Amino acid sequence: MSARRAPIEYAQAAPEVRAIYDDIMATRGVDWVNDFWKVLAHDPPTLQRIWDNVKRVMGPGALDPLTKELLYTAVSASNGCQYCIASHGAAARARGMTEAQYWELLAIVGLANETNRLVTALGVPVDRRFE
Amino acid sequence: MSARRAPIEYAQAAPEVRAIYDDIMATRGVDWVNDFWKVLAHDPPTLQRIWDNVKRVMGPGALDPLTKELLYTAVSASNGCQYCIASHGAAARARGMTEAQYWELLAIVGLANETNRLVTALGVPVDRRFE
Amino acid sequence: MSARRAPIEYAQAAPEVRAIYDDIMATRGVDWVNDFWKVLAHDPPTLQRIWDNVKRVMGPGALDPLTKELLYTAVSASNGCQYCIASHGAAARARGMTEAQYWELLAIVGLANETNRLVTALGVPVDRRFE
Amino acid sequence: MSARRAPIEYAQAAPEVRAIYDDIMATRGVDWVNDFWKVLAHDPPTLQRIWDNVKRVMGPGALDPLTKELLYTAVSASNGCQYCIASHGAAARARGMTEAQYWELLAIVGLANETNRLVTALGVPVDRRFE
Amino acid sequence: MSARRAPIEYAQAAPEVRAIYDDIMATRGVDWVNDFWKVLAHDPPTLQRIWDNVKRVMGPGALDPLTKELLYTAVSASNGCQYCIASHGAAARARGMTEAQYWELLAIVGLANETNRLVTALGVPVDRRFE
Amino acid sequence: MSARRAPIEYAQAAPEVRAIYDDIMATRGVDWVNDFWKVLAHDPPTLQRIWDNVKRVMGPGALDPLTKELLYTAVSASNGCQYCIASHGAAARARGMTEAQYWELLAIVGLANETNRLVTALGVPVDRRFE
Repeated sequence: MSARRAPIEYAQAAPEVRAIYDDIMATRGVDWVNDFWKVLAHDPPTLQRIWDNVKRVMGPGALDPLTKELLYTAVSASNGCQYCIASHGAAARARGMTEAQYWELLAIVGLANETNRLVTALGVPVDRRFE
Repeated sequence: MSARRAPIEYAQAAPEVRAIYDDIMATRGVDWVNDFWKVLAHDPPTLQRIWDNVKRVMGPGALDPLTKELLYTAVSASNGCQYCIASHGAAARARGMTEAQYWELLAIVGLANETNRLVTALGVPVDRRFE
Repeated sequence: MSARRAPIEYAQAAPEVRAIYDDIMATRGVDWVNDFWKVLAHDPPTLQRIWDNVKRVMGPGALDPLTKELLYTAVSASNGCQYCIASHGAAARARGMTEAQYWELLAIVGLANETNRLVTALGVPVDRRFE
Repeated sequence: MSARRAPIEYAQAAPEVRAIYDDIMATRGVDWVNDFWKVLAHDPPTLQRIWDNVKRVMGPGALDPLTKELLYTAVSASNGCQYCIASHGAAARARGMTEAQYWELLAIVGLANETNRLVTALGVPVDRRFE
Repeated sequence: MSARRAPIEYAQAAPEVRAIYDDIMATRGVDWVNDFWKVLAHDPPTLQRIWDNVKRVMGPGALDPLTKELLYTAVSASNGCQYCIASHGAAARARGMTEAQYWELLAIVGLANETNRLVTALGVPVDRRFE
Repeated sequence: MSARRAPIEYAQAAPEVRAIYDDIMATRGVDWVNDFWKVLAHDPPTLQRIWDNVKRVMGPGALDPLTKELLYTAVSASNGCQYCIASHGAAARARGMTEAQYWELLAIVGLANETNRLVTALGVPVDRRFE
């Protein structure tokens, strides 16, 4: 069994899937849907559920849209998900992320991974002052 | 061999270690040093090296100080480092992070971990439009 | 800033939070709510969103309820989340998981982590027969 | 040094390696060996050891064969091992896993990765009732 | 269900378990068994299997015993397993690891985690010269 | 936004970048620079910082150069970084690592990942004797 599933294009998609594609495009103000969604379309309940989550979490809130995309990109870089770095990195760039900011983001991801291991390996208890 | 090392307090620290503690406090504008550094003090070259890195990466740059701390906190939350969430979360809060922003940050960390796995498991290739 | 948040008990909870607690208890046929939800209650939108997801994903579907809880427990064990092993392990046990089955689950988690690293480190391409 | 090692085919394999290939095929009731084993064949002690483990852990026991393969696939998906998803996914499918079940498995893997991070980041202590 | 299992002491152990404890002590030339094995004793097949693996992998081979324990400690530190750092760190120390070497090991673990993320996030292809 | 950045060759590099390339070659006694550095060259401060770290951590110290490269390779294999396995594996081989030693290293990486999960999932407390 291959792990991969081919994207389902708009023309071939069932009405319920098209409705979600339409909502993705309308919400984002774009005229295309990236392949992550077109692959999830093989299972409409998962497509619907994940889109509901992304719409709620990444929509207007207490953090500004650029910061949200920077955070998503940073976690994705920490987890080594190239696709997610590409897609959320593009969204961050569309909201104003510069190349210099991207490199600082990567530097923070790298350094946090270093110090996270040192802290955990050394079993440093949380300072009272932080409690 | 215990994995833990007791913090080395200022009064007991060697001059080279005290100099680094002083630089940490001066750079941050605070009058105390958290235990991560006091544990690293068991190995002065590591203390010096990690502090040099944190000072360079987290110092003034293209991203504002609050965004930097949010990113550090998010990666630490994704990696499950409680100490790092506490210390960088405190730094973010000192720079203005609200409780509502913190919960949004956690929501992004959780959701990115979910979608990162789906993308990777499904082997979705990066869209041409992102290249 | 402490990373921890105290659970919000039913008596102290706002009406919107109580409604979710009630739904959790009714859906599961139990008379108490575990602390994960009571901590998420600090941010009602996150409480609502995560519960929506758990209800949808862990509700009736193509996999039987025991298998679903075994899978959740296995992923949690692989990720080292003690709380999640305890809560989903309890749910699996309530649906019939035996101690012998639990140990086999742990053995699979351990072995998969071993072979996953060997496969990835050796860069073994997927066999044509699996495509 | 490349991380990759070419598979050692049956015709080129030493007698001790052929004997393991034969045991793999006989145990599984198939007439071919997948490339993971043919790559491990570069180090016969590792090939022997890993096969011994897989045979013991994945052989008859308290969990049925399909559930075992579902668990192996889920952990592999959580760890992002495409090869392992493909090979254990194929084994699960041969034992009856449907496409709908596979998507539910992926949904559980994704959601567990989300809630595992939230629980750990929030430092939720295990409920007394679970102890 | 608690995730924890109490250690099974020698006096309470079944004969098959005592035989494994005896083999562990004899192989290591020590007069006690650490709790990891006493917890695995709840499932004798897992106890037997894991001990077989550790005995084979960590026994005499191409790498010297100290290097083997350093590698085990480093991987455990990278994975954040405090128990494993303590037990394999103690084994490394018994074979000659100094405090200065331990700190260098931790520095390598931290730095590798940093550069691993940078390389993966940036998608650097392997140089021809390394193939 | 693609996650990838093309390597910056020596001929196209700015003087500050060339100086670092020169230092890498001189320090290692080689006449070429691998692509990791040429990609980091897009952000000279990161190139400088990471090289400073690698030079300090991997330079002469308490552990011999071969052991350092074995540790770096093992952590990289545990994290699934193919590029890092290739580059540090090559460095280890140049310092004397044999193919048999490499396979033992991989076996330790695999086994540690297995036992790390078992220990953590079972919540085994650290033995008093290790404290």
